[in-house]
Amino acid sequence: MTGQIIDEPNPPALPSQLDDSILNLAAKVEKAKLGDDDMKSLKEFRRAACYIAAAMIFLKHNTLLEEPLVLEHVKPRLLGHWGTCPGIILVWSHLNLLIRNHGTDMMFVIGPGHGAPAALATLWLEGSLEKFYPDEYPQTKQGLHNVISRFSVSGGFPSHINAETPGAIHEGGELGYALAVSFGAVMDNPNLIVPCIVGDGEAESGPTATAWHAIKYLDPKESGAVLPILHLNGFKISERTIFGCMDDKELITLFTGYGYQVRIVDEMSDIDRNLAGAMEWALQEIRHIQGAARKDKPIAKPRWPMIILKTPKGWTGPKEVDGEIIEGSFRSHQIPIKAANKNPEHLKMLGDWLSSYNVNKLLPNGKPVRDILAIIPKDDSKKLGQIKASYDCYNPLNLPDWRPFTVESGAHASAMKVLGEYLAEIARQNPNDFRMFCPDELESNKLDAILKHTGRNFQWDPHSRARGGRVIEMLSEHTMQGFLQGYTLTGRTGLFPSYESFLGIVHTMMVQYSKFVKIAREVPWRKEMSSINYVETSTWARQEHNGFSHQNPSFIGAVLNLKPSAARVYLPPDANCMVETMNHVLRSKGYVNLVVGSKQETAVWLSKEDAAEHCKKGASVWKFASCEGEPDVILVGIGVEVTFEVVKAAELLKELAPELKVRVVNVTDLMVLNEQDLHPHSLTKEAFKELFTEDKPVIFNYHGYPTELRGLLFGRPGVHRMKVSGYMEEGSTTTPFDMMAVNRVSRFDVASQAIEWGDVEGKEKLIADIDNNLKATKEFIEKEGRDPDDIYDMPKF
Amino acid sequence: MTGQIIDEPNPPALPSQLDDSILNLAAKVEKAKLGDDDMKSLKEFRRAACYIAAAMIFLKHNTLLEEPLVLEHVKPRLLGHWGTCPGIILVWSHLNLLIRNHGTDMMFVIGPGHGAPAALATLWLEGSLEKFYPDEYPQTKQGLHNVISRFSVSGGFPSHINAETPGAIHEGGELGYALAVSFGAVMDNPNLIVPCIVGDGEAESGPTATAWHAIKYLDPKESGAVLPILHLNGFKISERTIFGCMDDKELITLFTGYGYQVRIVDEMSDIDRNLAGAMEWALQEIRHIQGAARKDKPIAKPRWPMIILKTPKGWTGPKEVDGEIIEGSFRSHQIPIKAANKNPEHLKMLGDWLSSYNVNKLLPNGKPVRDILAIIPKDDSKKLGQIKASYDCYNPLNLPDWRPFTVESGAHASAMKVLGEYLAEIARQNPNDFRMFCPDELESNKLDAILKHTGRNFQWDPHSRARGGRVIEMLSEHTMQGFLQGYTLTGRTGLFPSYESFLGIVHTMMVQYSKFVKIAREVPWRKEMSSINYVETSTWARQEHNGFSHQNPSFIGAVLNLKPSAARVYLPPDANCMVETMNHVLRSKGYVNLVVGSKQETAVWLSKEDAAEHCKKGASVWKFASCEGEPDVILVGIGVEVTFEVVKAAELLKELAPELKVRVVNVTDLMVLNEQDLHPHSLTKEAFKELFTEDKPVIFNYHGYPTELRGLLFGRPGVHRMKVSGYMEEGSTTTPFDMMAVNRVSRFDVASQAIEWGDVEGKEKLIADIDNNLKATKEFIEKEGRDPDDIYDMPKF
Repeated sequence: MTGQIIDEPNPPALPSQLDDSILNLAAKVEKAKLGDDDMKSLKEFRRAACYIAAAMIFLKHNTLLEEPLVLEHVKPRLLGHWGTCPGIILVWSHLNLLIRNHGTDMMFVIGPGHGAPAALATLWLEGSLEKFYPDEYPQTKQGLHNVISRFSVSGGFPSHINAETPGAIHEGGELGYALAVSFGAVMDNPNLIVPCIVGDGEAESGPTATAWHAIKYLDPKESGAVLPILHLNGFKISERTIFGCMDDKELITLFTGYGYQVRIVDEMSDIDRNLAGAMEWALQEIRHIQGAARKDKPIAKPRWPMIILKTPKGWTGPKEVDGEIIEGSFRSHQIPIKAANKNPEHLKMLGDWLSSYNVNKLLPNGKPVRDILAIIPKDDSKKLGQIKASYDCYNPLNLPDWRPFTVESGAHASAMKVLGEYLAEIARQNPNDFRMFCPDELESNKLDAILKHTGRNFQWDPHSRARGGRVIEMLSEHTMQGFLQGYTLTGRTGLFPSYESFLGIVHTMMVQYSKFVKIAREVPWRKEMSSINYVETSTWARQEHNGFSHQNPSFIGAVLNLKPSAARVYLPPDANCMVETMNHVLRSKGYVNLVVGSKQETAVWLSKEDAAEHCKKGASVWKFASCEGEPDVILVGIGVEVTFEVVKAAELLKELAPELKVRVVNVTDLMVLNEQDLHPHSLTKEAFKELFTEDKPVIFNYHGYPTELRGLLFGRPGVHRMKVSGYMEEGSTTTPFDMMAVNRVSRFDVASQAIEWGDVEGKEKLIADIDNNLKATKEFIEKEGRDPDDIYDMPKF
Repeated sequence: MTGQIIDEPNPPALPSQLDDSILNLAAKVEKAKLGDDDMKSLKEFRRAACYIAAAMIFLKHNTLLEEPLVLEHVKPRLLGHWGTCPGIILVWSHLNLLIRNHGTDMMFVIGPGHGAPAALATLWLEGSLEKFYPDEYPQTKQGLHNVISRFSVSGGFPSHINAETPGAIHEGGELGYALAVSFGAVMDNPNLIVPCIVGDGEAESGPTATAWHAIKYLDPKESGAVLPILHLNGFKISERTIFGCMDDKELITLFTGYGYQVRIVDEMSDIDRNLAGAMEWALQEIRHIQGAARKDKPIAKPRWPMIILKTPKGWTGPKEVDGEIIEGSFRSHQIPIKAANKNPEHLKMLGDWLSSYNVNKLLPNGKPVRDILAIIPKDDSKKLGQIKASYDCYNPLNLPDWRPFTVESGAHASAMKVLGEYLAEIARQNPNDFRMFCPDELESNKLDAILKHTGRNFQWDPHSRARGGRVIEMLSEHTMQGFLQGYTLTGRTGLFPSYESFLGIVHTMMVQYSKFVKIAREVPWRKEMSSINYVETSTWARQEHNGFSHQNPSFIGAVLNLKPSAARVYLPPDANCMVETMNHVLRSKGYVNLVVGSKQETAVWLSKEDAAEHCKKGASVWKFASCEGEPDVILVGIGVEVTFEVVKAAELLKELAPELKVRVVNVTDLMVLNEQDLHPHSLTKEAFKELFTEDKPVIFNYHGYPTELRGLLFGRPGVHRMKVSGYMEEGSTTTPFDMMAVNRVSRFDVASQAIEWGDVEGKEKLIADIDNNLKATKEFIEKEGRDPDDIYDMPKF
């Protein structure tokens, strides 16, 4: 069973040890019957698109090859990725045919987003570039010239698919997320089918490897379908791919195990009938599964279709350059002919290659001939580049008033429990436009009130009767983020609650997403969309069952690095501010909203009226905790637990040093601190001065890493009087108070700093007293192992 | 083929649509013949360990149940995770038996690291806690009392496996990485077998989903083996798992597709013979595969063994509490009896449960009876808690002199090409202790010189003859990071080269790793280890084929947030500084080293002697670019391209404003800037003043995000005279100069700021001149589309 031992030390290709019967798991594709016209149209559409895509990478002048090619016609910098383009064009041509024949609503998600030339070439051919860029890229000779000559040049389309690309909802950079995004897009979009091309490079990434399981969270009654197309061209940038080295038996077994029905399309000699047959089959299977569910006779564990498409990398490109194989090798990944702008021999190869597409017949005078267009859907709104779901479909939430959900000030409440009730009402009022995506932490985060109204949407559990649930919990932050992105970009609103420490897992995904959105907001034809919303709890400051490994507030920093037009970070200090803030963020558009709060019962400082005012300002003096008049020292809390310590420090100081006038400030909107003009929320110089004076010591007690707050405050007046403390990578499974103490943000640390920096008599004695107090408290807690809530009612020493 | 349509709307469990013949892919486990003594020992070892683990979560006093349990005996805060413990203990008992019987070198990697009670209980039983903690945790009654009473309490073991846990090389917090780490650990360790338990929660994560492919990169000749044990208990924190809802056919198909031979162990009524049989089989299969390869008759695509183990969550724990099922449900995840410290009924249940293990017979007077110990290996060095590979095995690299690899100053050179030659020599001189792990970017990053000496180690490519290669390229940053972690923690040295923008994918993994290392350095019995080393190139500043999506220098910030004892960030300004820096980092121990450089040909500013001195200082005045005497303004470059712009700005200023005395400083070691005493590399106040004066304007041109540099500089004297520019999320596929210009770090921007902030006459006119210059340059470049290297030789306007 292990396999045979090979006699030669370095044997050639050998079969794997799976029995051939495994091939029966996947039936052979029944070829489609295609008329001659369609066959011709498919081929000519592809030839034209491949020509345009190739020309985009190489040509600056003479873009229609109207005269013999000379070196000066070639771009001085050759930038772009050819290898993946022909495969994308092949799929696109067949999707067109499918849409034309069946009137299906489809949106195409392209994992190998560096195949932008393929997308742009087809978009020009189908007229979608003209629709959105009538001046720059009309379906005319000049428009085509612009498509080709301006590609990968300052001011033109970049080399990766981005928000400027019609029909796209996915940034074509960091690989691995296309599949999860596709599933998010079809959720609550029952008529939408998203064919998603996954490259065999991308398929090696972890996020893709687990996103195949996404079918297990897709309810065919309420949602549309994804048709995954695993595109194997066998090579990454410079190495074979894992999937390219798997034989059919291995591929079929793996994806059957994931839960799919697999069809392999690899017959290059009859690729059109082969692929069209697979696509027709897939569409029928999707309709079969959906039909059953929509008749309330759902199929258990439905086996959704997927296609594995094998084509040579850089198909139809140059076969060989300088004695090295190009087509069907990693050498076609980017520029298949490297010196075409310098070396006359290379130039000739380029000319021969480009001429092979016979462009003067297909695009006479820069106009596509009718044959090419025959496969394209007639109805513009069905074209892949113009489907509304990709750019104009925002459906704002119906948001209930937040005030009835608040609690009395002076009480103790879990901000997450209070928020949970509000979210439950939102889910009730928005049955098809609101979802929560969470990595198995909803209950642990005390947000489970929503489960009173709705279930967890997990289709694979034979014991579960949950259908149509608004909550998805899969232990994959990447998949949750992907679902959230796809859901948001198609006009709905989602929320991603997470343990604070693990949201950083999707740091770079969030950055990619926000790059897409930054450009989307600059593109006039893209309509508005909701923000992408995160709530972090189970923070380092209240650890419960977990310790050092669960302490990482770095996602704040990730958001801070975004453009100020998108970056929003809130640390509401209590339950009332939390629910007000969530109302605000779920109403907002186009931002990245990060809200950090506590799941434990904590003090409710502000009434709903005060909470509304405080949140509106972003920061204010808490008079109830401050001395009257001009302050000698300002204590600032940013975050729930560290603010509590600040209030306690103020109390302590009133006892120990009553002559010291202490002011307590809370900041709930972090961005107000950023230097004036750097962020739309930045406090003006005057407002900053009003809160923090110009010259008095300011002690910041901050929930996140101190360096990032220091960076925000950098340009503010008199930074040398400011002292910033925060989480400093200290802690274990320990008491809440100990977490404050080891990170030097406890009431005693704050009070001690106030004394040290303030103008007080007898500093040394006071500091020694405080220090003794700290030690006694630590000992007491270590000995007693007090319940966490006792932090609110600790004895004095 | 889609499956049957169900008649009831919400049907009960149904078979999936795979044919039963699929079960033949995995043979039934042949049960082991176990003697009565071993059967008894296995069971009693487990009973004792389960008792200790459960008691750790609950008991503070009366830890051996010597008197009737009362509320005061129970801990006031119940912290810990019970659910996964019995399964871990079951596996541990059988690994002991296997090691005892075969003398195998094994190291256990536990994915569900919150099962710390299971690990600590077994480590105490096998005497490994006593070895490393003879005072606290000896194999005595007091020692056992300490193990139990101090768990999850300030100062005791935390609730997750960490570096304090003997035998562990993996932080038990963020899930998903255990499998990749295990593979890294066995690489170049031919005699080591790492059984790796993967929980069914963790298995949903992307990093785990792709790490199953790791066998495809494991050469059985030079490396050891991993035995993955997928532990299915069916539940996450509060929801069913995907894998728990897959039937045997789906499980077998999926993992057969990944390339494994699968055995399912689930016969609870005869679990010992079942599991022992599977383990014996796995060991034989491993030896078979290794034997063939080591006789130079390797098996093509060898199908390594894996075990799927199904046990009820919280097995042997309480069956039901308050009418709710506990054993076999998510309710056993953490505290199965929630109010045992308050509610007398719960207390009674706890007493009944704990008594069921019959601890007074198994651990009379706190000593394990002989039966329990019979399965434990006699040789201490073979025990899972004492294997040297887990804590004492550092083999420093044999590092060749870096100087012969430098180039002449004044030349242009690609820092990566120069570095590549040096790395090739390191690989040659360290054939079994050095590896490079790279997500398919080695050639693109111009580091391919190493391929002259060695190959890519990819076992699955039937066309490849590569065996024993030092380079692994899989398009999964997570897997590369996992390999690197395992390889480093077992005493060897690795390097992770990456596109700058995508290293952030492993941000939180790196943080988890550095948490492990932070504690490891505080634990006296853990010996030294090499640093974990990253080199970032293909940075935002020289984009080539890629655009906005490939611009993300945030990994610098991730390293900055680590403890100063570990955080090291270098931005060597040229090829010579790069190779010196790499020599330094590969020699260092216990740090997280991030080195950022360029792959393009850039100016070589410093001779090897000057490079050595500059790197030693971390920052210095570049006299060749500065005016003599005391400066009026200081221009600081940090990073390759932005430093080049600073030098050019100084040239420009000499022409435009010759009366302005300009000083040029380069910072190569970022941490020198951090406020005095905050970092071991921080410049003293005096040294800082010597470079930057106390009061003159300082213009920082920084490669990373400006906010993080502002945060570092916060406590330095006179920050208001400092101006920080850096990457501000602007760019596309465009020219290198345009990237500088849109992010406001071009020579013109720097010069303009110097004029604005400096004491110069005719500011307005000068700034207007510079602005015109900038515009003319932009237009020229847009028109000409100049080759990137032309940035060094741009015309003047």
